[in-house]
Amino acid sequence: MTRVEQVNQKRRGRRAAGEDTRSALIAAAREAFVEKGYDGATVRAIAARAGVDAAMVNHWFGGKEGLFAQSVLQLPFDPSEILKRLLDGPVEQAGERIIRTFVTVWDANGGGTFAALIRSVTSQQEVADALKSFFINAIFKNLLAAIGAEQRELRATLCATQLVGLGIVRYVVRFEPLASTDPDTLVKAIAPNMQRYLTGEIDN
Amino acid sequence: MTRVEQVNQKRRGRRAAGEDTRSALIAAAREAFVEKGYDGATVRAIAARAGVDAAMVNHWFGGKEGLFAQSVLQLPFDPSEILKRLLDGPVEQAGERIIRTFVTVWDANGGGTFAALIRSVTSQQEVADALKSFFINAIFKNLLAAIGAEQRELRATLCATQLVGLGIVRYVVRFEPLASTDPDTLVKAIAPNMQRYLTGEIDN
Repeated sequence: MTRVEQVNQKRRGRRAAGEDTRSALIAAAREAFVEKGYDGATVRAIAARAGVDAAMVNHWFGGKEGLFAQSVLQLPFDPSEILKRLLDGPVEQAGERIIRTFVTVWDANGGGTFAALIRSVTSQQEVADALKSFFINAIFKNLLAAIGAEQRELRATLCATQLVGLGIVRYVVRFEPLASTDPDTLVKAIAPNMQRYLTGEIDN
Repeated sequence: MTRVEQVNQKRRGRRAAGEDTRSALIAAAREAFVEKGYDGATVRAIAARAGVDAAMVNHWFGGKEGLFAQSVLQLPFDPSEILKRLLDGPVEQAGERIIRTFVTVWDANGGGTFAALIRSVTSQQEVADALKSFFINAIFKNLLAAIGAEQRELRATLCATQLVGLGIVRYVVRFEPLASTDPDTLVKAIAPNMQRYLTGEIDN
């Protein structure tokens, strides 16, 4: 960084500089996790790649798991933002919004981040725990609470079966024709099943 | 094998001896694939562990992939047997039979073989291909043909999303409560979704 850039960055104030740090860490982490896997990519190496102090990982993400969830899952940073998006519309179309949101996010980079996620999840219990806390607790349980659903714990994990299975077949094993099916067709095919897990009868 | 055992085996005739070879290979392969993964477990080592000639792998399974599918998937040997079981009853309960059959088979060993399968599938394209040929072609497409469904290719892969996702959440990441839910409750919760992929409207 040049002297002028340093001055400019200071002028932009603390918050903007913080966002730069955060963005740089996310970009560096995404590369590192895809290259080396969850274990192989160290916090120290990611911070060095981003050109920031390793303490910033704890500061911004609460640790390696949080950084992983936000970089590799590649969703907007705040789960509450996703939740807001999923709740923005009629309850009976929530299933559709879920499928459309996740397919759009994951399709954007050809499914690479989803595939990296699954490789880590299937070999690392702590990644599975991070995923659970992100998807199940921060998003689905809150969504189901907002909808007023009963049996939220079971419904949240049922939603996970469909969403994870969709990701595996589309991005990891790439079974055709589903791997190449356009998003609108996918939404029509899968959203009603997701909707049933959210609001339908699941015990008779 | 003692001399007496050798004589006894000869007396039982060629077919029985062949079935012994086949069973020994399946048991050895299951151990080897779980211990060393798909790549690490060689045909030669599996055959040695089973005490038979390596050529028997090609003879009985058509190669390493076939041996993997039949040992690690741990289903009755012939896909046509599974298919027969899934078709044995009313078409509108086929989704229920699918969920019950696979959960029963996979639960039987605590999900270990499903987890081994997924670890191999997510790192090995040839295992993904073996899985596809086994599940999608040998079972689901034939099932859908027997049912007289249209859009069989897409429906078969939609079925795969639900079944694979169920396996991941129950046996690999083990999200609760789904990981511990009893099979009857699971069947009630999931079978209608599977049924929709088989016979329901999927494009509007």
